[in-house]
Amino acid sequence: MISFTMVAEDGPARAGVLHTAHGDVPTPVFMPVGTQATVKGLDVHDLRCTDAPIVLGNAYHLYLRPGHDLIAALGGLHRFMAWDRAILTDSGGYQILSLGDLRRIDENGAEFKSHLDGSRHLITPEKAMEIQYALGSDIAMVLDECPPYPVNREDAERSAQLSLRWASRCLDRASPDQAVFGIVQGSVYHDIRAWHAEALAALPFAGIALGGLAVGEPRDETMGIMERIAPLLPRNKPRYAMGMGPPEDLVEGITRGIDMFDCVVPTRNGRRGTAYTARGKVIIKNARHAMDERPLDETCPCRVCTTYSRAYLRHLFASGELLGPRLVSLHNVSFFVRMMRDARDSIISGRFGPWKADFLQHYRAGDHHESAIPGR
Amino acid sequence: MISFTMVAEDGPARAGVLHTAHGDVPTPVFMPVGTQATVKGLDVHDLRCTDAPIVLGNAYHLYLRPGHDLIAALGGLHRFMAWDRAILTDSGGYQILSLGDLRRIDENGAEFKSHLDGSRHLITPEKAMEIQYALGSDIAMVLDECPPYPVNREDAERSAQLSLRWASRCLDRASPDQAVFGIVQGSVYHDIRAWHAEALAALPFAGIALGGLAVGEPRDETMGIMERIAPLLPRNKPRYAMGMGPPEDLVEGITRGIDMFDCVVPTRNGRRGTAYTARGKVIIKNARHAMDERPLDETCPCRVCTTYSRAYLRHLFASGELLGPRLVSLHNVSFFVRMMRDARDSIISGRFGPWKADFLQHYRAGDHHESAIPGR
Repeated sequence: MISFTMVAEDGPARAGVLHTAHGDVPTPVFMPVGTQATVKGLDVHDLRCTDAPIVLGNAYHLYLRPGHDLIAALGGLHRFMAWDRAILTDSGGYQILSLGDLRRIDENGAEFKSHLDGSRHLITPEKAMEIQYALGSDIAMVLDECPPYPVNREDAERSAQLSLRWASRCLDRASPDQAVFGIVQGSVYHDIRAWHAEALAALPFAGIALGGLAVGEPRDETMGIMERIAPLLPRNKPRYAMGMGPPEDLVEGITRGIDMFDCVVPTRNGRRGTAYTARGKVIIKNARHAMDERPLDETCPCRVCTTYSRAYLRHLFASGELLGPRLVSLHNVSFFVRMMRDARDSIISGRFGPWKADFLQHYRAGDHHESAIPGR
Repeated sequence: MISFTMVAEDGPARAGVLHTAHGDVPTPVFMPVGTQATVKGLDVHDLRCTDAPIVLGNAYHLYLRPGHDLIAALGGLHRFMAWDRAILTDSGGYQILSLGDLRRIDENGAEFKSHLDGSRHLITPEKAMEIQYALGSDIAMVLDECPPYPVNREDAERSAQLSLRWASRCLDRASPDQAVFGIVQGSVYHDIRAWHAEALAALPFAGIALGGLAVGEPRDETMGIMERIAPLLPRNKPRYAMGMGPPEDLVEGITRGIDMFDCVVPTRNGRRGTAYTARGKVIIKNARHAMDERPLDETCPCRVCTTYSRAYLRHLFASGELLGPRLVSLHNVSFFVRMMRDARDSIISGRFGPWKADFLQHYRAGDHHESAIPGR
């Protein structure tokens, strides 16, 4: 199981430690996404270099391929992917939502057709727990219904009620040696979200997540929801904003009392050649980097920035070399992990506000500069 | 410059050390191919793990993209790709041959259209030296005309004569701080090859290569040529069989007195999921590996074999994950490098014959076993 220790608070911002059987996770934390038992392009030696203390896996994907039974027979997900630090698995509620017409949801669970081979599957809350227990993740997420955006008020309420009943069924099936997090839904309706959050807060979850964010709603809505809902969550449990990505949003999430984040942007955008740096995004394919001997980020101690120039990285992308996507992904994950450590240090020293202002000022200045020059 | 020290001979097989400004290269040696300033999928930290003392770059590719001038302005190829060990650059003769109708060759040099954008270029022997000097490789190869296979006797002879004149022009333009290797051509005509080899042996090259091998001729021809020609080459200079690949051919090359090899098979086939092991090829996509907890090669100390199971690697390929091609490439390069070290040790201890027999017996037994079970 896991436990959570609060180390410091600076306004609503929190610094803590999540203790797991696979090591301590200092929070706020960014969790790289390893959907199919690999953070795309990175191996576990790379991941250790980034200092990431926890990664995400996805129960839906691993259930379909290679199968949770196979992974269990081989000793669980940690052993399968050779990762000895913590793992959180998502249940697949969001992935099943994304299937659109390929899925049907009723009280019992979610029936869907595999995106791989069209085969039919039924995932119930109990089955979602069974899969995640077989995977052996440190933290399992409840099965939830994640409504699309926009959704009308009635459907959002019906869906949040269903998700709450499913959450209880998940808890009933939970194993004592695996932590389970509840997930708050309710779309952009604050009162539904508040009701759902308080209902989940009353249940013995190890932590609580905000789901259904960053699914297309305006950024102000996202921020408003975090601001309204986080204070309703238990102070002594970790809070996780699912799928929230760009660095400027992570900073705002921390500001509102969120402890855990995950997002595909460092790897997805990294594969396309977008690097995140202290001075904003760098589009490495741009011609301006062709002769640039500087690293992606002059303040970054990561293995990519201490080894390779922008000129070399640009050449790799221009030549379609496999190594380019990997190196920019590696830098990006390092950047996200380190950024959260910096935020944490500032919270502990009671300087989160000034740190945030400074971070955003530099980050935004750089971003503007780069995007002013069109890519080639 | 470089120098070559002979350490031991065991029949025609030789163990030596090639001393370069970027470290010693124990021979026999396998040189991973880094055509576009990257060994595909591997970064220099990976390459160091494989213990490779030297890699190949390709002057033709780097001339076209990003340009040898750009690389020179950034401090040369070593610095550009962050590789501090030795580099040999191929001149591009073989690549220009591959262009077929896009190239025209006369006494002056090779005129061709870029495979990238159709732009016209003229590479003369002098230009080939200039490009490689700008790249700053430790060893430059002469520009040669590599005839296709099959080629008639007259054309092979005319071509070898042209290559010899070009080789002299390359030497005339060589810099004192870059070693230059000559290249023996002559297709499958032993007498033309012998004449060419002796002519090159009389010139002050730092080493001599056999070119135009492994271009489609029967394997017996390849072996026959090495057997006939190697004894004509200076004993005190390194001998390099260009483009020769599978492990069983490397062993036969060593048997015939060759010191240096390069080939794309470890990375090209690695990207497709074919692993080379002490027990032959392993086709990792095969269903039989789905539950296999063993590493690719139980005798291999490489980072892949000490970290990941066949089951995991198969999952990566089945899922189309970037990490799969990279990990199998990394293992393969490690395997090729280590295999040459083992061969070298056996030569030094006067046991090359028994080592070879043992290697081939195990290698062939495994290969047969794997290919008997069709892939899925």
